Amino acid sequence: MSKYDELMTFQRQTEALGEIAGRLGWDQETVMPQGAAPQRAEEMGAMEEVLHSRRTDPRVGDWLDAIDEATLDDVGRANIRHIRRAYERVSRVPIELASKLARVTSAAQGSWAKARAADDFAAFSPVLEEVVTLKREEAAALADGGDLYDALLDDYEPGATGAGLQAMFDAMRPRLVALRDEAMGADHQPVALSGRFDEKTQMKMARKLARNFGYNMKNGRLDRAVHPFSSGSGLDVRITTRTSPTDPFNCFYSTIHETGHAAYEQGIDPDYLLTPLGQGVSMGVHESQSRIYENQIGRSRGFSAYLFGLMQHSFGDLSVGDADAFYGAVNKLHAGFIRTEADEVQYNLHVLLRFDLERQMIAGTLAVADLEEAWNSQFRADFGYGVNKASNGCLQDVHWSVGLFGYFPTYSLGNVYAGSLMKALVADIGDQEAALADGDTTNATGWLRENVQRHGGLYKPAEVIELACGFQPDVTPLLDYLEAKFGEIYRL
Amino acid sequence: MSKYDELMTFQRQTEALGEIAGRLGWDQETVMPQGAAPQRAEEMGAMEEVLHSRRTDPRVGDWLDAIDEATLDDVGRANIRHIRRAYERVSRVPIELASKLARVTSAAQGSWAKARAADDFAAFSPVLEEVVTLKREEAAALADGGDLYDALLDDYEPGATGAGLQAMFDAMRPRLVALRDEAMGADHQPVALSGRFDEKTQMKMARKLARNFGYNMKNGRLDRAVHPFSSGSGLDVRITTRTSPTDPFNCFYSTIHETGHAAYEQGIDPDYLLTPLGQGVSMGVHESQSRIYENQIGRSRGFSAYLFGLMQHSFGDLSVGDADAFYGAVNKLHAGFIRTEADEVQYNLHVLLRFDLERQMIAGTLAVADLEEAWNSQFRADFGYGVNKASNGCLQDVHWSVGLFGYFPTYSLGNVYAGSLMKALVADIGDQEAALADGDTTNATGWLRENVQRHGGLYKPAEVIELACGFQPDVTPLLDYLEAKFGEIYRL
Repeated sequence: MSKYDELMTFQRQTEALGEIAGRLGWDQETVMPQGAAPQRAEEMGAMEEVLHSRRTDPRVGDWLDAIDEATLDDVGRANIRHIRRAYERVSRVPIELASKLARVTSAAQGSWAKARAADDFAAFSPVLEEVVTLKREEAAALADGGDLYDALLDDYEPGATGAGLQAMFDAMRPRLVALRDEAMGADHQPVALSGRFDEKTQMKMARKLARNFGYNMKNGRLDRAVHPFSSGSGLDVRITTRTSPTDPFNCFYSTIHETGHAAYEQGIDPDYLLTPLGQGVSMGVHESQSRIYENQIGRSRGFSAYLFGLMQHSFGDLSVGDADAFYGAVNKLHAGFIRTEADEVQYNLHVLLRFDLERQMIAGTLAVADLEEAWNSQFRADFGYGVNKASNGCLQDVHWSVGLFGYFPTYSLGNVYAGSLMKALVADIGDQEAALADGDTTNATGWLRENVQRHGGLYKPAEVIELACGFQPDVTPLLDYLEAKFGEIYRL
Repeated sequence: MSKYDELMTFQRQTEALGEIAGRLGWDQETVMPQGAAPQRAEEMGAMEEVLHSRRTDPRVGDWLDAIDEATLDDVGRANIRHIRRAYERVSRVPIELASKLARVTSAAQGSWAKARAADDFAAFSPVLEEVVTLKREEAAALADGGDLYDALLDDYEPGATGAGLQAMFDAMRPRLVALRDEAMGADHQPVALSGRFDEKTQMKMARKLARNFGYNMKNGRLDRAVHPFSSGSGLDVRITTRTSPTDPFNCFYSTIHETGHAAYEQGIDPDYLLTPLGQGVSMGVHESQSRIYENQIGRSRGFSAYLFGLMQHSFGDLSVGDADAFYGAVNKLHAGFIRTEADEVQYNLHVLLRFDLERQMIAGTLAVADLEEAWNSQFRADFGYGVNKASNGCLQDVHWSVGLFGYFPTYSLGNVYAGSLMKALVADIGDQEAALADGDTTNATGWLRENVQRHGGLYKPAEVIELACGFQPDVTPLLDYLEAKFGEIYRL
């Protein structure tokens, strides 16, 4: 057996064990008996130790040293790139720091939940300060003299930089703010959908919608959970959604969003199963798939007309009387504080705010004690109204408490990628509105599978998007699309 | 940290990983997407390798050598007993033999399923012969000069011997055969339940019955599966059952049976969580709990009267008109070929047959090629009619194909233990019929929890039953109980 084959045999088992750890997470959020939580924590801890010891196993370093990459093909070199990158990252962080981070963030999540319930940032501030201090230490170990924030960002979006994202986001903010203000101030305002919608029927429709978007139920399943998510790679990719009797769009568009994530995983070349290439290549590329499924395709005029028919069929007459009004209801902008409830126009403003603040905290130019004030002042500048309580402000997201610094910007990067991909898709196979009005996403999702999804981890994140688009992705297509779409809906 | 604490810390992680492997099995039988099977096989393989390398880790041997048992309390000594026993067993089997056994039995299960579908023992015979040859090798490695069958039996029922079981079973066979013949030939024959029963309603009732028997749903759940089973220990013990529209008793009594297994796991002293004492001590003791829940308690006159009321409430009028007739229907004997469908009187005859044959195969006195003939001739002697096809004969059970030799007798040992425990229970807290007629099993299951279940692995299997009974368990109470019960039902 060659050194490469030995390494890949070892890696394949590690990937398989990683899948098991992921499935335990699925189990916990969907079917686990409530009282099992303390035992589950120990089980997860044991599994994480197994994974950590494999990821830091010195044999991996020996294999990497012994392999001559010149003898490998593209797939082989890509596998080595992923394995080397992961091994070097995990090897740079001292084990004491990694353990301390695990311990502190685990406790911090509990403190955050308590502080959020009490709307008390001051109670959480010292805890978050400890997390930030440790993340800065971790970043220093990883950065090797380079930029601290970039070192953290690299965990979620290899190759991206804080400066590059800053330039991108700076170009977005003024146009998004202007569009939001114009639309919200327009004379014509779409009417929201109202009524009560049976939750079992919503779940039935959610299954149908997932299938409309090409989700393969033979290798997956859809369940209800508190937070929608997609979990797993390869032949077992499960998704969840949620239901509320008064907000069926939440159920339907969460389902389509998660279907985008899952379709990416299911669309990867089966030859890459249980290898480093067998999963989505970055958070940003992942989000590009979930967002383009949800927004550019799912909230299009065509698909919303199809959804209008489905809902009438399932629920009878709706409070909005025709497909045009329904399209408006699906896309209606809402004033609000919460990122996860934000519409297509304002969502990125929520992300930009977090990116600015976390980059400053990691750089050391914003003290954690000053975070709430900085958040509230930036929020007022971006949204035009003040935050009324910490749970609607800087305590709303779990991310920072668990140490996820560098994660937020991948949401907006995904939107930027989705905008560019949609432009390329339409240029390549034409406007899809007629097919979407029949609920047929085959051409659109097929194009994405062929040009993005099937490659898995073969290319670097920015490369795969550029290859698919035929041009370097940037913010213009997304902003043009939003201005055209909402300009029409709001009759601007 | 003392050497004992070091070992227990390591062991605790191994136990946690074992729980994860078990939960993957649950997932596979209940919620796993159909198409995930090939990936799951790799995941399970990776997990088994992790577990095997921990179980054979030389550090365990070093810890065991370094620990002075005289410094430990009863719990500590029992933990060491379990860990030492497992370590010595796994260390005695050469890794090449263990791998070959895993490979051969994995393939043999497929061959068995094909041969069973084709009713073709000749096609399976060479495959089974290879399994038996390897099991004999394994037994020789384990036995260290002792009896081969005893060495295998020890995996499922530590301390039991083939000779001891033979004496027990020899005393059972004639009384069981006589009782079956008398009952089946009696003038009075109970009427079977007929009708169709909604399967969702059956599942609702199954949940109620599990609760009646003390199953804690906060630390478990009940799902539907092809084969009923109980899975997991400690705080996460899940059970399954099955439904058939014409056979609700199958659903209900499978549920009660699995509740017995689960209640044992849930009833263990919480101090033993994720230690070797934190799970049922042997297959025989486990089966004693499932059987006493199912039969001595669940099929009692009292509890069947309660079930009659429940079923009338859920399904309206039944084909049997009163509680007495219903009690007869619940306990009616049936002629048949299949062990898993057998009634309380004939079940053990099925097991005795298998015990005789597998003991001879392992001893080398029965050639695998002659198995079918030996089975069919013994079956005719025990049951009075001939086997009509191999799938109703020696191909009906999966056990031998996957190498489970020494497992079958624990089913009957469990019944013997259940008979003795029931005698002790009644002697201690009195006849429970009145409470059971109200669906109240609290005293009966509470007695079992207190006297058997809570001890987990603290005592040896035969010890815990003898301690609970106050006398050495033997076949007489079980046979007396069966003769009295069926004598009354069949008016003998």
